[in-house]
Amino acid sequence: MKKKVAIMGATGMVGQRFVSLLENHPFFEVTSLYGSNKSKGKKYGDVVQWVLEKDIPQYAKDMVVKSFEESPEVEESIVFSALPSDVADTLEVELAKSGHFVFSNTSSHRYDRFVPILIPEVNPDHIEAVKYQGTKGFIITNANCSTTGLVIPLKALTEKFKISNLFVVTMQAISGAGIHGLYALDIHGNILPYIANEEEKIERETKKILGTFDGEFKDFELEIFARTNRVPVREGHTEVVFLEVEAYLPEIISALKEFKGVPQELKLPTAPEKPIVVFEDPLRPQPVLDVNKGNGMSVSVGRIKLKGSTLTFTVLSHNTIRGAAGGSVLNAELAYVKGLI
Amino acid sequence: MKKKVAIMGATGMVGQRFVSLLENHPFFEVTSLYGSNKSKGKKYGDVVQWVLEKDIPQYAKDMVVKSFEESPEVEESIVFSALPSDVADTLEVELAKSGHFVFSNTSSHRYDRFVPILIPEVNPDHIEAVKYQGTKGFIITNANCSTTGLVIPLKALTEKFKISNLFVVTMQAISGAGIHGLYALDIHGNILPYIANEEEKIERETKKILGTFDGEFKDFELEIFARTNRVPVREGHTEVVFLEVEAYLPEIISALKEFKGVPQELKLPTAPEKPIVVFEDPLRPQPVLDVNKGNGMSVSVGRIKLKGSTLTFTVLSHNTIRGAAGGSVLNAELAYVKGLI
Amino acid sequence: MKKKVAIMGATGMVGQRFVSLLENHPFFEVTSLYGSNKSKGKKYGDVVQWVLEKDIPQYAKDMVVKSFEESPEVEESIVFSALPSDVADTLEVELAKSGHFVFSNTSSHRYDRFVPILIPEVNPDHIEAVKYQGTKGFIITNANCSTTGLVIPLKALTEKFKISNLFVVTMQAISGAGIHGLYALDIHGNILPYIANEEEKIERETKKILGTFDGEFKDFELEIFARTNRVPVREGHTEVVFLEVEAYLPEIISALKEFKGVPQELKLPTAPEKPIVVFEDPLRPQPVLDVNKGNGMSVSVGRIKLKGSTLTFTVLSHNTIRGAAGGSVLNAELAYVKGLI
Amino acid sequence: MKKKVAIMGATGMVGQRFVSLLENHPFFEVTSLYGSNKSKGKKYGDVVQWVLEKDIPQYAKDMVVKSFEESPEVEESIVFSALPSDVADTLEVELAKSGHFVFSNTSSHRYDRFVPILIPEVNPDHIEAVKYQGTKGFIITNANCSTTGLVIPLKALTEKFKISNLFVVTMQAISGAGIHGLYALDIHGNILPYIANEEEKIERETKKILGTFDGEFKDFELEIFARTNRVPVREGHTEVVFLEVEAYLPEIISALKEFKGVPQELKLPTAPEKPIVVFEDPLRPQPVLDVNKGNGMSVSVGRIKLKGSTLTFTVLSHNTIRGAAGGSVLNAELAYVKGLI
Repeated sequence: MKKKVAIMGATGMVGQRFVSLLENHPFFEVTSLYGSNKSKGKKYGDVVQWVLEKDIPQYAKDMVVKSFEESPEVEESIVFSALPSDVADTLEVELAKSGHFVFSNTSSHRYDRFVPILIPEVNPDHIEAVKYQGTKGFIITNANCSTTGLVIPLKALTEKFKISNLFVVTMQAISGAGIHGLYALDIHGNILPYIANEEEKIERETKKILGTFDGEFKDFELEIFARTNRVPVREGHTEVVFLEVEAYLPEIISALKEFKGVPQELKLPTAPEKPIVVFEDPLRPQPVLDVNKGNGMSVSVGRIKLKGSTLTFTVLSHNTIRGAAGGSVLNAELAYVKGLI
Repeated sequence: MKKKVAIMGATGMVGQRFVSLLENHPFFEVTSLYGSNKSKGKKYGDVVQWVLEKDIPQYAKDMVVKSFEESPEVEESIVFSALPSDVADTLEVELAKSGHFVFSNTSSHRYDRFVPILIPEVNPDHIEAVKYQGTKGFIITNANCSTTGLVIPLKALTEKFKISNLFVVTMQAISGAGIHGLYALDIHGNILPYIANEEEKIERETKKILGTFDGEFKDFELEIFARTNRVPVREGHTEVVFLEVEAYLPEIISALKEFKGVPQELKLPTAPEKPIVVFEDPLRPQPVLDVNKGNGMSVSVGRIKLKGSTLTFTVLSHNTIRGAAGGSVLNAELAYVKGLI
Repeated sequence: MKKKVAIMGATGMVGQRFVSLLENHPFFEVTSLYGSNKSKGKKYGDVVQWVLEKDIPQYAKDMVVKSFEESPEVEESIVFSALPSDVADTLEVELAKSGHFVFSNTSSHRYDRFVPILIPEVNPDHIEAVKYQGTKGFIITNANCSTTGLVIPLKALTEKFKISNLFVVTMQAISGAGIHGLYALDIHGNILPYIANEEEKIERETKKILGTFDGEFKDFELEIFARTNRVPVREGHTEVVFLEVEAYLPEIISALKEFKGVPQELKLPTAPEKPIVVFEDPLRPQPVLDVNKGNGMSVSVGRIKLKGSTLTFTVLSHNTIRGAAGGSVLNAELAYVKGLI
Repeated sequence: MKKKVAIMGATGMVGQRFVSLLENHPFFEVTSLYGSNKSKGKKYGDVVQWVLEKDIPQYAKDMVVKSFEESPEVEESIVFSALPSDVADTLEVELAKSGHFVFSNTSSHRYDRFVPILIPEVNPDHIEAVKYQGTKGFIITNANCSTTGLVIPLKALTEKFKISNLFVVTMQAISGAGIHGLYALDIHGNILPYIANEEEKIERETKKILGTFDGEFKDFELEIFARTNRVPVREGHTEVVFLEVEAYLPEIISALKEFKGVPQELKLPTAPEKPIVVFEDPLRPQPVLDVNKGNGMSVSVGRIKLKGSTLTFTVLSHNTIRGAAGGSVLNAELAYVKGLI
């Protein structure tokens, strides 16, 4: 018996990825799609401006979209949320209070006292925090798309080595801005040297995710300097990382190559076989060629070099799969297997 | 009376910029264009695959191209060189020996004992090194395109403050690879995370340029970590910089804004009024909007922030004007005004 | 003494072109800039999201923007309009009634009984229609951007030959959609096979422009089939044309090459020396290389072939200069020289 | 028992598609990969510059590449050829003489007297021509990529209606030029208005394919005017078509929607369920969204309109799957099922 789930914000970029990834999912069955008032009462296939390379799944085409704007009574106990922040601010809390298990992509509650920013390969134990939320249901968030790609290789390193002084420069894909988030004239053959709030998110989330939870979250200690840029690439965030590390290069490469986490042990359905794919070819990873590694759930790492104690490498991750909808689905799979939902 | 000049490698990307920038130049008149054997004896307008946004200057269209492959006897005393490296290795030296003044874009002789890598705003005194070359003529090189954009704001800082630990990540335009340097399928909507030899050049050249010359070049002391990427942008290299500096932010901004050099004092024809254009808008500089600041000779700097002693900023410079042909022309103008040619 | 002019809709794509083209104009001086209410009372330089490759002209930066939304009392007798259609519907008429000479880019009044769609090289006599408008001032419109590029070479042909059965397929630049008219995700590496209303405009406007005016407009007789596409190009509409013509190919090529019109005779300031630039190289015209021919006012024609009586050629024109603001400025110059304003 | 097949030209764009499409094929097993001399003796995974969005199939990675340059003795009876034209000119004939069944992508033999240009949905009976080739083996070619997308909907029309006077304008993807066929600077944000030989191929092949074979090929009678352009799109050729037809629009739409051919009847493994996918949304088809319809084997048709007797529509097809390797595989499947190989 599959669990019924609702998708909130189903017509947006991340919502579409949820609809796509949850087709034929072994644990979950999508039974409600929520959009804004203007989609209400219409068939999903008629209102969605579908932008994915694969077609709309057949199951979703004729589903009648409900509105998340009118204090909805949600039947499903499990909710995947790609809600706009202003709606998520209150609605996700209400859902948790009324007993729903919310797996959220929005940043609204990432820094709430007992809400984990969960990446199952990195901080699976943070899931325990939901028990402190004091509501019948709970909220579990995933990280910002650019944080996700960064923190997975960082975890592989911090498990074994001491790191400090992190510098990261991102080159982020246009899909990360959402379907209506960026005008063509602004990014065509161009670079935007700034993405609002993105740098703060990377700096803050990374410390929380790599930190500990034992009744309270405690940040990982690390100086982080992030610079975020938008580039004319469709899918896939590329990040160039510098950090100080005490280790030999072969150990570092092994740590990255051999890294596995709880999702791999538990063989969660959405878990990639290899969380990290390591490249030796200096011309890899490239967004066009590598963004779909592990069905978009693997993070690609290349250009690994050590000069003195300064390690540099380049990370590529799929921003709307691993860094968004796929991340949330993996979180729900972990909660499911742990009997929390 | 204008000085006669020859352009070597006139059909390539940088050669075309030379041809364009030297139209109606107050000091120089182009009287010979050199290409490879296959262009020899043909009209420039017929053999060049012109790729600039402005038309081929009228003066150049009907000039008959000579070959640089057949140990040419060059009449002009002044030579602008955009030669392929393997040709430049020997030909530039022969030219200097036979009394020519070579202003070169190639990397062949940048690290030769008495050859300056000259950026007139940064190290105008390095021009003195040519007196030690022991030849009737001399070679003056300009820096690699990605070095140039970096080292101009660095000079503004090092003039006044102590800096250390430089990290730089570049996002470089496709024109930097030359007309036939990059295949469409490799960069369309994509990022290449590596450019061969580019990182070494930035690290090595920056130290030489910021260093001193008093009979010998002495490197500036600085740890530099460079990571270079190719992005789908036509013109303009963007670079994100992190460094340690001892200064207050307002001082830093003033130092960048007010920076002027010898070319501005001497009002050299190709010198931009402002070597550095500073932006407060976090969404600037952008290649499409800002690459032509100061006719492509100004360097744009934005996103200036200081956290602790870590300074970050973003630089944009025109890679084939300031970072190539325009830089060489400015070098020749300095030599001209100083009576060296 | 220059005539004072106002620009309406000055912050948009076409408005910016007006601001740029009218810098240092010999006939006109911009003394008012109008935007929407949200720009009202602010400096133009602070509210405009400038997207042109050249900087904002100094003269415009500190001008305080007025609102076109509050039935403005316009002091200038001459108005360049890049208003949104819904505003232009009524405001342009009101302006004409109150004695203003309106040079408009919007399609609102193109099909009004006595309003010419003026392209001075093509139908300069249509300017007589303004005398029938019955208002103190008048409205003169220019053609849709894709019509303009098409109709100039057509005029060169119809002057000398009989043509019929026109098929045209456009590949239109993203700037044609305006600054906020197209989302990045929709056009990045993609083609949109349809532009709303564009095909009807081409078909209808072409007939009116090529037609006659003698107290009434009478359409030129021609079957036109237009198909419009959006492509990932920044500036420059490319159009592939097929038509039936009774002529020899050398005559056709001469007719295109030698075509001149009233603006060339009168040496209007914005008139290009050659209205049509003809290419023999089959790889030309290209948007990146040729869009700025004649400062963006020349139309480029290439790939001219005749098979039987079917003529084919490819046209490129600058959609926001020749096809928009530059076209209106040329119209105003003609009216000025004719003493109509 | 699967049949053993060799792929010639396996490292190129089309070769890679062959390698990818033949993974786990029910009829065929790839046992040899041929490349140029410089790949000879090396592992395929080491020499190929893989450019597809899916990884290199595991089976191919360690296969040692053989050379097609040294009059190879080919063991496999079935050969898929993506050879360079100059090699194919003689090698494909030699292979056919020595008993091989060659399924070729190159244009070398398309117009040979008894060589069919086969598209199984369109002219399955042309396969009979191989019996007249007079060799132990045979050559079957597929059409040029831009012809293929055009001719499938044409077949759906000509089956039922009389058509004449075809005009077609293509907007072709960069992958069609091959991995090393196009420089980045030439097509970045640009359009090339010409592709060498492409227009002649469309005009000539279309008539042969739609024609008849009864001991001789006889061309279909149709005036065709083709104009081909290169656009900055990665995969998928878009074509705008005008033609004269005697039919009602609803009949035309039905004919396109309901069109099926022999591959669908025979349920060939690579045959798409629907050879033609018809869109009503005027904004479809789009390369990014629709190129993979039917695993890249369906042709998408949209914007169908009839004005008088002039029909217009827009076609999109996958140029390296349906228009190249996928087409050849489908040809081989037909030959297999018919017992010819």
